[in-house]
Amino acid sequence: MKGFNVAILGATGLVGQELVKVLEERKFPVASLELLAAERSGGRRVFVNRTELEVKDATSRSFDRIDIALFTASAEVSRHFAPIAAQAGAVVVDNSAAFRTDTEIPLVVPEINPDDIKSHQGIIASPNAAAVQTVMALYPLHRMNPVKRAVVATYQSVSGSGAAAMEELSTQTRLVMEGRAAVPHVYPHQIAFNLLPEIDVFLDDGYSKEEWNLVQEARRILHAPELPMSATCVRVPVFIGYSVAITVELSRAMNPDDARRILADAPGVKLMDDPYVSLYPQPWSVAGLDDVFVGRVRTDGSHPNGLAMWVVADNLRKGAALNAVQIAEAGIQRGWIPRRK
Amino acid sequence: MKGFNVAILGATGLVGQELVKVLEERKFPVASLELLAAERSGGRRVFVNRTELEVKDATSRSFDRIDIALFTASAEVSRHFAPIAAQAGAVVVDNSAAFRTDTEIPLVVPEINPDDIKSHQGIIASPNAAAVQTVMALYPLHRMNPVKRAVVATYQSVSGSGAAAMEELSTQTRLVMEGRAAVPHVYPHQIAFNLLPEIDVFLDDGYSKEEWNLVQEARRILHAPELPMSATCVRVPVFIGYSVAITVELSRAMNPDDARRILADAPGVKLMDDPYVSLYPQPWSVAGLDDVFVGRVRTDGSHPNGLAMWVVADNLRKGAALNAVQIAEAGIQRGWIPRRK
Repeated sequence: MKGFNVAILGATGLVGQELVKVLEERKFPVASLELLAAERSGGRRVFVNRTELEVKDATSRSFDRIDIALFTASAEVSRHFAPIAAQAGAVVVDNSAAFRTDTEIPLVVPEINPDDIKSHQGIIASPNAAAVQTVMALYPLHRMNPVKRAVVATYQSVSGSGAAAMEELSTQTRLVMEGRAAVPHVYPHQIAFNLLPEIDVFLDDGYSKEEWNLVQEARRILHAPELPMSATCVRVPVFIGYSVAITVELSRAMNPDDARRILADAPGVKLMDDPYVSLYPQPWSVAGLDDVFVGRVRTDGSHPNGLAMWVVADNLRKGAALNAVQIAEAGIQRGWIPRRK
Repeated sequence: MKGFNVAILGATGLVGQELVKVLEERKFPVASLELLAAERSGGRRVFVNRTELEVKDATSRSFDRIDIALFTASAEVSRHFAPIAAQAGAVVVDNSAAFRTDTEIPLVVPEINPDDIKSHQGIIASPNAAAVQTVMALYPLHRMNPVKRAVVATYQSVSGSGAAAMEELSTQTRLVMEGRAAVPHVYPHQIAFNLLPEIDVFLDDGYSKEEWNLVQEARRILHAPELPMSATCVRVPVFIGYSVAITVELSRAMNPDDARRILADAPGVKLMDDPYVSLYPQPWSVAGLDDVFVGRVRTDGSHPNGLAMWVVADNLRKGAALNAVQIAEAGIQRGWIPRRK
């Protein structure tokens, strides 16, 4: 099979590096790979399949030969370059928040709503990591027994904020262990040995943008625009991996054993649920893995049709890079992402 | 005022040390203070008000002269010594899980159900730290507008497991920062830079004992034995402070501003809620403080009568030592804890 000309915009970032790895691991049909940076990162070099590639500054002509552009930069950068790339004939899979709530642009988790890719006009959005793993766990149940309400509380690692935040957690941890004061830079307060219920800016209703996005994106992906859902999003002193405590009301009561069977069969989901031998998903142990891990499945004692579960995934993999590459794969397979003539 | 002969059983532990501090800070009427250890800790010395006191091994005669015995040991130790102390004429305020779900024994948060102290027969239980702060935030709302359902997710620090767990978090953190493997001892898995949705043993229904206790204790303290409620309890890599994301359904809709006003007026509760300037409770900043801090108060978008909030408290203070001392104070003040003749 002849390959695709692929570009990664944001190649020097955490998700950019993960995109390079995922393309290699999955033997994505790459004819050529262009590594791009949005600003001042150009000139850096990155190893791809044991070969050093230079990262170039993105310009308005960067996408003229590109079939598939994987974007993982800020929303501002995506808003600027995605229309340019689409106009130039590339299909953009965007991992920023720029287009996730834009109803004209498909928002896709390939295990759930791959058909939404079809309507793309050059841009497809990949959801927020917390939303991806939440819907990956909800959808298999929802398909059998529609979800009537969901309440989630998240435990989100610092890698979701990028490499500087991982460095900040390291630095602050060292300072605290030495009995010194930890000065915050990336976050408004110390994150080492602390919790911050603030992710992204706050909206007028008291919700953070992250909480609002999680709910809006879950509704879009599940095609359940009115689904009653609310979230509390919290940053925790963990490097990689997002965890979500989900409490869900279904249309009818569901036995936890049935829920476990359904989840175990769902593509991209791995059941890890034997608490009696301390087996449940943990961010430390799922970092680097592709699946969304579900455990602690039990009846929600506060509602007759309720279930509770604990869902952990690598926010850089299924939460970001892997999902973006899977979108490209699904689009190619179905003929909705064509190769340039 | 003539003082009371006070004993602390478990004086060398984290909560024991905090009890010593709280008694001093609050100028509790102490005539004499006896520091006791349940096993093999005897002989150690502890500073109390700049004076060194020896910790003695507890025996069946340790309580013969004691008016008030503050217990903070294992449930097994409490089950053994509390009846002995009560028989000897002391009033025991027990901070273990031994009696918290025993309906014959009052379970008290003095701001909420002080009158329950009256029925004690020598033993009064102080609740689990996660339960204390949950009911401290729920009760002021519940009094005005009865709670119909509550769903909570916790973020619990390692100090809830004692000094060895704090040491384990330190040691593991150092090892991970040096790129070495962190071997778990106190917990079943690594806690540094990780999350463990396992606190106490697991019951047949898939809930952990901590989750079950939180619900049972909240119901007892609120005098709402049928309250629909469920919990997910998670250990987080934080030294001190428990945080709880609470989603609650009230009998009628309540404006978040009204909820904030009610919470701001509640004794023992401090409102800390201006997210737009990154003001919300954090475990790092409330460690060592007495109040239960509430922030992120907002309408729960998933239910017409719903509210969501974020509640943080020092699990060693209001969650344990302070609440126990407040129980003793409330009992003395109301004449339900008499001085020995």
